[in-house]
Amino acid sequence: MPVGTQGTVKGLTPAELQAAGTQILLANTYHLMLRPGSALIREQGGLHRFMAWDGPILTDSGGYQVLSLKELVRVREEGVHFRSHLDGSSEFLSPERSMEVQADLGSDIAVTLDHAVPLPADPETQRDAGERTLRWTERSLRHGRTLVTPEGREQLLFAIVQGGGDPDLRAEMAERTVALEGDGFAVGGLSVGETKEETWALARATTQVLPLDRPRYLMGMGTPLDLLDGIACGLDLFDCVLPTRNARNGMAFTTAGPINIRNAEHARSKEPLDAACGCEACVRYTRAYLRHLHLAGEILAHRMLTLHNVTFYQTLMAKARRAIDEGRFSSYAREFSEHYRERSGGPPASA
Amino acid sequence: MPVGTQGTVKGLTPAELQAAGTQILLANTYHLMLRPGSALIREQGGLHRFMAWDGPILTDSGGYQVLSLKELVRVREEGVHFRSHLDGSSEFLSPERSMEVQADLGSDIAVTLDHAVPLPADPETQRDAGERTLRWTERSLRHGRTLVTPEGREQLLFAIVQGGGDPDLRAEMAERTVALEGDGFAVGGLSVGETKEETWALARATTQVLPLDRPRYLMGMGTPLDLLDGIACGLDLFDCVLPTRNARNGMAFTTAGPINIRNAEHARSKEPLDAACGCEACVRYTRAYLRHLHLAGEILAHRMLTLHNVTFYQTLMAKARRAIDEGRFSSYAREFSEHYRERSGGPPASA
Repeated sequence: MPVGTQGTVKGLTPAELQAAGTQILLANTYHLMLRPGSALIREQGGLHRFMAWDGPILTDSGGYQVLSLKELVRVREEGVHFRSHLDGSSEFLSPERSMEVQADLGSDIAVTLDHAVPLPADPETQRDAGERTLRWTERSLRHGRTLVTPEGREQLLFAIVQGGGDPDLRAEMAERTVALEGDGFAVGGLSVGETKEETWALARATTQVLPLDRPRYLMGMGTPLDLLDGIACGLDLFDCVLPTRNARNGMAFTTAGPINIRNAEHARSKEPLDAACGCEACVRYTRAYLRHLHLAGEILAHRMLTLHNVTFYQTLMAKARRAIDEGRFSSYAREFSEHYRERSGGPPASA
Repeated sequence: MPVGTQGTVKGLTPAELQAAGTQILLANTYHLMLRPGSALIREQGGLHRFMAWDGPILTDSGGYQVLSLKELVRVREEGVHFRSHLDGSSEFLSPERSMEVQADLGSDIAVTLDHAVPLPADPETQRDAGERTLRWTERSLRHGRTLVTPEGREQLLFAIVQGGGDPDLRAEMAERTVALEGDGFAVGGLSVGETKEETWALARATTQVLPLDRPRYLMGMGTPLDLLDGIACGLDLFDCVLPTRNARNGMAFTTAGPINIRNAEHARSKEPLDAACGCEACVRYTRAYLRHLHLAGEILAHRMLTLHNVTFYQTLMAKARRAIDEGRFSSYAREFSEHYRERSGGPPASA
């Protein structure tokens, strides 16, 4: 899922997202509740109509953004009190409020409010956050089932599994979350300070408990290799700002690994970003031109690199789906990894 | 001509420019000679190929940009010494150098180097700049005829007519410029401090001397009403940053006059920017959505307002061409003006 934080995947139109192979978008509840406000979006007929995207939309619960605000966040049993990053005004997000905002937005998939903790954390903190997440999940699901979206579409409710850095706690939380009967499940609180090896051990501890007939969504990561590793752990949906955010910093994904278009080596290059890619950026423009646009701060640079990176991610996933259908996912993932080099100066592990 | 200062009309692709009705673009010699440098663009096959635009391109001479640099500009008979706005390095632009850069870029229309003066100015300064412009025009044309473009295309050379704020000097300069035999003529040094009435008197003093069988290009202005007034003065080509620059500031042109999408009155509007317009911005999005994007600083706001404004200008001109063909230009211009209101808070008179 490309990330459309403020009701747009930065720089792209819905038609371009579709041409890139996008099936579903993520939009951020936190950002949209503050601006332009969910009542306005409901009044406009919901987020699909507002942003002119007629494919599925998943909204997150806003919990992750609120808890990452550095200052003035108070977590209470009723919900989270915080101050808006826009104007400092006092705001409040509870399980009920999160679901109401998501119903206003009219997303196809809404996600329960959770309480994640950065790692490392002591066992008590992890347990405490996990138990609170379970109580909030129950409240989110109960209230969410009563709400109506602006277009009257059915909204699926995904429950987030937490559990910190302890695989046993993860498994317990997964089991108790499953009992609450979400339409799908999300794995949250990963890539928050632990090693990559730990990440996948924690993911597996969760997914092996989740029912096979419900989608599993890994929240907020990662690199192309992360996605393939995640699929191997039994995960189905992913979202990450890497392809879009890094595009604006000049980073383009290629089958040989990420490149930075700012680098002098591309100054006179007549090659496309990726000869294997059929997106508009690769069909029309040389690296030399895109580097010029990027250094000159031109919007078209952000736009073309974003289009390319989204195309790259969607192609990676489309090929993974095909490989799974044909029973050869492991060899697909291995072949991709052999050609793909995450050079220094490449992307961070997650974002 | 939409303005593609740095080898791109900010935010738009060539396909979008064409869909908006664009026939020809302007690119800025000054900016491109400094970054990425004209030698690089020649090596890439010329500006058409570099930016993937296969329609005509007009390049200006760079003189206007250089002379508007506030500091460290020295005008000498050989040319203009100046410092780059990018890194402060010493640069030099002469008639010969300007034509060489434009030949490297491979534009379809190159423009001679001129010396414009801001108004008001004393008669001696105006005469002096006019005489220098004539000498530079002769040098530009002589040298320009010897140059070869990267694609081997024929390059038309347009000569700029100056003459300051004195209609008699304008007429004299026009006559003496015509004798130098440009392929077309440009009217420069207008909208530099004089009243609108004076602008059109000076333009008429020039155009009435120019040959009827050569195109006349009014440089760097203006509003929709300016364009219609300019056509009435016998002018054929125009360029202006208004539709593109003002789009990024939230200003959209409509048949009822300019609106600013930031204004609260649009916060809940389900109307398009202009119900009479068929561009992607007007077909897909409400004012409420575009206002949200603009206030959130989203690239798509700049992109959609730019697309709309370019479409608006091209439609205005396409209708003007049709009206001229059908012998009803005056009534077309009058009807447009009756509906179009330049409200306070609207665009500046020129840019």
